[in-house]
Amino acid sequence: MKDKFYQYIQNLQDQITSKLELIDGKAIFQEDLWERPEGGGGRTRVIENGHVFEKGGVNISGVHGKLPKSMQAYFKVGDVDFFACGLSLVLHPKNPMAPTVHANWRYFEMYDDKGEIIDSWFGGGQDLTPYYLFDEDAKHFHQTCKTACDKHSPEFYPTYKKRCDEYFYNAHRNEGRGIGGLFFDYCKANDTMSMEDWYNFVTEVGDSFLEAYVPIIERRKDLPYTQDQRNWQEIRRGRYVEFNLVHDKGTLFGLKTNGRIESILMSLPPHVQWVYDHHPKPGSDEEKLIKTLQEPKSWV
Amino acid sequence: MKDKFYQYIQNLQDQITSKLELIDGKAIFQEDLWERPEGGGGRTRVIENGHVFEKGGVNISGVHGKLPKSMQAYFKVGDVDFFACGLSLVLHPKNPMAPTVHANWRYFEMYDDKGEIIDSWFGGGQDLTPYYLFDEDAKHFHQTCKTACDKHSPEFYPTYKKRCDEYFYNAHRNEGRGIGGLFFDYCKANDTMSMEDWYNFVTEVGDSFLEAYVPIIERRKDLPYTQDQRNWQEIRRGRYVEFNLVHDKGTLFGLKTNGRIESILMSLPPHVQWVYDHHPKPGSDEEKLIKTLQEPKSWV
Repeated sequence: MKDKFYQYIQNLQDQITSKLELIDGKAIFQEDLWERPEGGGGRTRVIENGHVFEKGGVNISGVHGKLPKSMQAYFKVGDVDFFACGLSLVLHPKNPMAPTVHANWRYFEMYDDKGEIIDSWFGGGQDLTPYYLFDEDAKHFHQTCKTACDKHSPEFYPTYKKRCDEYFYNAHRNEGRGIGGLFFDYCKANDTMSMEDWYNFVTEVGDSFLEAYVPIIERRKDLPYTQDQRNWQEIRRGRYVEFNLVHDKGTLFGLKTNGRIESILMSLPPHVQWVYDHHPKPGSDEEKLIKTLQEPKSWV
Repeated sequence: MKDKFYQYIQNLQDQITSKLELIDGKAIFQEDLWERPEGGGGRTRVIENGHVFEKGGVNISGVHGKLPKSMQAYFKVGDVDFFACGLSLVLHPKNPMAPTVHANWRYFEMYDDKGEIIDSWFGGGQDLTPYYLFDEDAKHFHQTCKTACDKHSPEFYPTYKKRCDEYFYNAHRNEGRGIGGLFFDYCKANDTMSMEDWYNFVTEVGDSFLEAYVPIIERRKDLPYTQDQRNWQEIRRGRYVEFNLVHDKGTLFGLKTNGRIESILMSLPPHVQWVYDHHPKPGSDEEKLIKTLQEPKSWV
């Protein structure tokens, strides 16, 4: 399974970065291969200062070895070996009318001292963070997520949509990071789903990413915008930073377990502002966004 | 003691904001009075888009009531009443040649059910974060800190200078946030220092702040700079954000105990950049700064 999934994310990375380069039309991904001293490594691909993408990364990694101490406590296991691989992506478009998107698909294995798998699971999801809200975009993104989920279980979309709203939440601001999508974790073999079934589900979601995001970026990338709208985007990107650095378990985990810092923090937006006590004008598009983020909505 | 210290920080806030407005010559502090539903409140003063100060805050607060659950666990005490007050300031100058400065002085009391003080202590410090390193500035700042300390004990400067280097450290980057200064906490009555002695020490440091920072900002505020130098400043400000959101106990504490978010996050810089895997040119001023931040230095 681990080889099959790693092969899958390698191919998916190629597919996604090729498509995004085509859309951008100017910048290309810079590739960094890196090795983890304790075992494994990754292939980081970052795009910067494009026509469309101001900054973004589409990264894969596959790491293995002794489970770090901090993770032993987290997973409540002893001194075991592990393998983990995944694809993580974040795209920050230049145009404030175009939303930031984040996605991640990952697989984890732990072994006993004979090398037998004692536990394994999939996790991941994809979610959208607009600066200006286009209902059409939100509906398309969620509909694509739902269609992928529904092929595997009617319960997946409502369950993982709700988890996404709960997880990507800036508690200190009382608002969601964005308008959600899917978030799932610890997807393990059970009565109805084998690991093979989970593989099929997770790769279905992975395959749906371009379908979910490309029509949106195509529609918004060339819309006109003002400097005020750009400022608003940069202020909202500040909230994105706050979520990733204060609340996101994946980011904090990476920072505290000696991960590759630049691959972890590629998720942070390129230009960001913090303005003291900023409030959008009543009735404005900016205020409409915030109100939507304060109360998770059914999009499909 | 609590009334005396609160009176002190009120006066100090007035003194500091008046002086900074004079230096800025354009922007003035915007004052927000706020109340904490559970008891107490504060006076937040923020300056933005000045000639000299791009963003800054000089805030005082005095809060009291039942110690929040999260703090009970932290201080390893039961369901007690508390009082806490302090002055916190952060100044982000516009000119990249001028350093960001941070300072904080605070006093804490806890009470038994008869209202008797069961514990009390002072804490605080001040530290400097340059974007371009002028040895003259670092020496002046540290010398002023040392002079204030030496009036109270010859051990204070070396001890609190070291704690500052250790505390304001971006472990995930293996570098200090800045070039340090002083950091002290849990200053309680002991064989050699009464609470009155600690009050005299902490207010001595508070009184030294303008002396430590004003000559530096005066020297640097009008130096010429390039867009590249400005970009470097914004990239380094990203490290400042990383420290405050990932490592700073005060910030995280405020965010997790329902503090006044805008007063807590006024510390974040106005314009910030994250560039993937940025490395300054070998031999450049930018590289010189990073090398200094990687290894705490004796400045006096």
